[in-house]
Amino acid sequence: MVQIAVLGYGTVGSGVVYLLDKNRDIISKRINDEIQVKYILTRREYNKDKYASKIIMNIDKIVEDKDIKIVAEVIGGVTDAYEYTKKLLKAGKNVVTANKELVATKGTELFKLARENNVKYLFEASVGGGIPIIHPMIQCLVSNKIDKIVGIMNGTTNYILTKMLKDNLSFEEALKNAQKLGYAESNPAADVEGIDTCRKISILSSLAYGRNVNPDLINVKGIDKITLEDVKVAENKGYVVKLVGYSKRVGEEKAEIIVTPCAIKKNHPLANVDDVYNAILVSGNATGEVMFYGKGAGQFPTASAVCSDIIECLDNKTNVEFVWSDEKIEIETPKLKCLDNINIPIID
Amino acid sequence: MVQIAVLGYGTVGSGVVYLLDKNRDIISKRINDEIQVKYILTRREYNKDKYASKIIMNIDKIVEDKDIKIVAEVIGGVTDAYEYTKKLLKAGKNVVTANKELVATKGTELFKLARENNVKYLFEASVGGGIPIIHPMIQCLVSNKIDKIVGIMNGTTNYILTKMLKDNLSFEEALKNAQKLGYAESNPAADVEGIDTCRKISILSSLAYGRNVNPDLINVKGIDKITLEDVKVAENKGYVVKLVGYSKRVGEEKAEIIVTPCAIKKNHPLANVDDVYNAILVSGNATGEVMFYGKGAGQFPTASAVCSDIIECLDNKTNVEFVWSDEKIEIETPKLKCLDNINIPIID
Repeated sequence: MVQIAVLGYGTVGSGVVYLLDKNRDIISKRINDEIQVKYILTRREYNKDKYASKIIMNIDKIVEDKDIKIVAEVIGGVTDAYEYTKKLLKAGKNVVTANKELVATKGTELFKLARENNVKYLFEASVGGGIPIIHPMIQCLVSNKIDKIVGIMNGTTNYILTKMLKDNLSFEEALKNAQKLGYAESNPAADVEGIDTCRKISILSSLAYGRNVNPDLINVKGIDKITLEDVKVAENKGYVVKLVGYSKRVGEEKAEIIVTPCAIKKNHPLANVDDVYNAILVSGNATGEVMFYGKGAGQFPTASAVCSDIIECLDNKTNVEFVWSDEKIEIETPKLKCLDNINIPIID
Repeated sequence: MVQIAVLGYGTVGSGVVYLLDKNRDIISKRINDEIQVKYILTRREYNKDKYASKIIMNIDKIVEDKDIKIVAEVIGGVTDAYEYTKKLLKAGKNVVTANKELVATKGTELFKLARENNVKYLFEASVGGGIPIIHPMIQCLVSNKIDKIVGIMNGTTNYILTKMLKDNLSFEEALKNAQKLGYAESNPAADVEGIDTCRKISILSSLAYGRNVNPDLINVKGIDKITLEDVKVAENKGYVVKLVGYSKRVGEEKAEIIVTPCAIKKNHPLANVDDVYNAILVSGNATGEVMFYGKGAGQFPTASAVCSDIIECLDNKTNVEFVWSDEKIEIETPKLKCLDNINIPIID
């Protein structure tokens, strides 16, 4: 019996608790053990909830409980989540997270803390939701030098761009439509301004180059200035417009990274990635281009990734020791050719 | 220092040896250790080879060497490879393989033998070449019930079908073209008759359902009877013809599995997978549809997968204990609707 705690009981947190129950038989058979949620940390009571008896409001109860070896942090943000994660790692608990902001900005420190305390800090759910991407990059592509990453990593903006093209909507109309369906938040800034994509390409770049890529150094342009006309002009030239995180190795200590709407040729593997789907193309010097495709967000896809990390913590050792260092890496904005008439760079 | 042996020195074997050298710095940094090839088992001398001093011709030297903890089997076939693998597992060596025939037909026995001897038998390279697929399925999708797998898993046939469509070639002409470029073997039967795809869908199905799916029970149709006219008729209806391995869970003890040329709608994620590329779509009950895309064969893509498994063996424990059992699973051929006028089933 493995006892765990879940921090946060929003969409992803409740998804994790539910999924561990729903697929209990399958999981127990595969790992030859059983996972039990002992605590759910929230900021308020949930009296009528099925899991009400597990709910607590004080992190120290988890920190001090020697039975808890693994904690899932799905609070988000970098205030409480950061403090709790440090406390837990120092107390010798493994922590798994869906928190891309925390991993992108404090990852270097938290990996170091995890190593010092002989535990893991895992983050499969921080990029690509339910798409396996972190683990395949760390483990399956371990013998590759990663030279380039190009990805559609934000479902909200991809839904908006798909709707603009297919239903002839303006950006504002498509955004409203996405909000109505719950695909965009009432304050959609982090998505439409490219901030979310920036955190994700920062994490993948750090992994690829083995050095921390500070998201603040990345030039970011969102889709809020993209017009229906831009989308249509691109289409007539055989391109689709997608919000892309782009990262290319330039020698050992430099990378060209940008977040920007891009024109992608219709026969490119990323061109047919529509609606809330994400896809990430990774180029390794042995394996060539590989692509990972699926739902980049949502309750159960993200919970699926969190649960796989929980299970990975059952291992007492990980074969890949190194995540990324705090050595400097120079970040430049790539000079990409733009499509004639509209100011949108082309991705080959 | 980790000392390993490589069995077989053909395309993949020499790729493994070369890749471990070429990317030595990257690999050593990531795993905080160094991998050294101590032996290469071949059937003849290679006097002038860079690695001539490592070449041996007697498996027992490896079996008896206590320094060797990990062996890569890239011989292929089920005669020597099978006997050697058993000997090595019994001697307490971890074995990693690219041998889909051996995994599909003898996997159940070899996993059991590995467990009994407290070592691993890993097979990432057996499906999808350099595309991470086995590991993501076992580990990243561990908390999912896998309901369906559809994939283009053979580069040779996909190249032939792509050429037929794009260059208006007959099957025979496209095959000759593929042979000239080294994409098809002089005896192309295992590829064009669908046998290779059958082994791969058998492995993925066994993983998905946790029970050994015997490849002999799968109904297999290759592309050797596909005409240029079939391909063109499908195109005019908005479909492309692809050789597909298809597997669908039907309850706990039954699955519908087939290998067949299929008509795939042009906006389907698999439709744009051309030339020697492979792509595998996996549906999990939490993560939804995820797709893995890349080069499904070739020296370095396959070597990349073999090397990732070698590195996984450095772990003394794996968090996922269960691969598949020898419990019976009933295999049926799915009843798929065919495209009008041509006898090719449609995949949605």
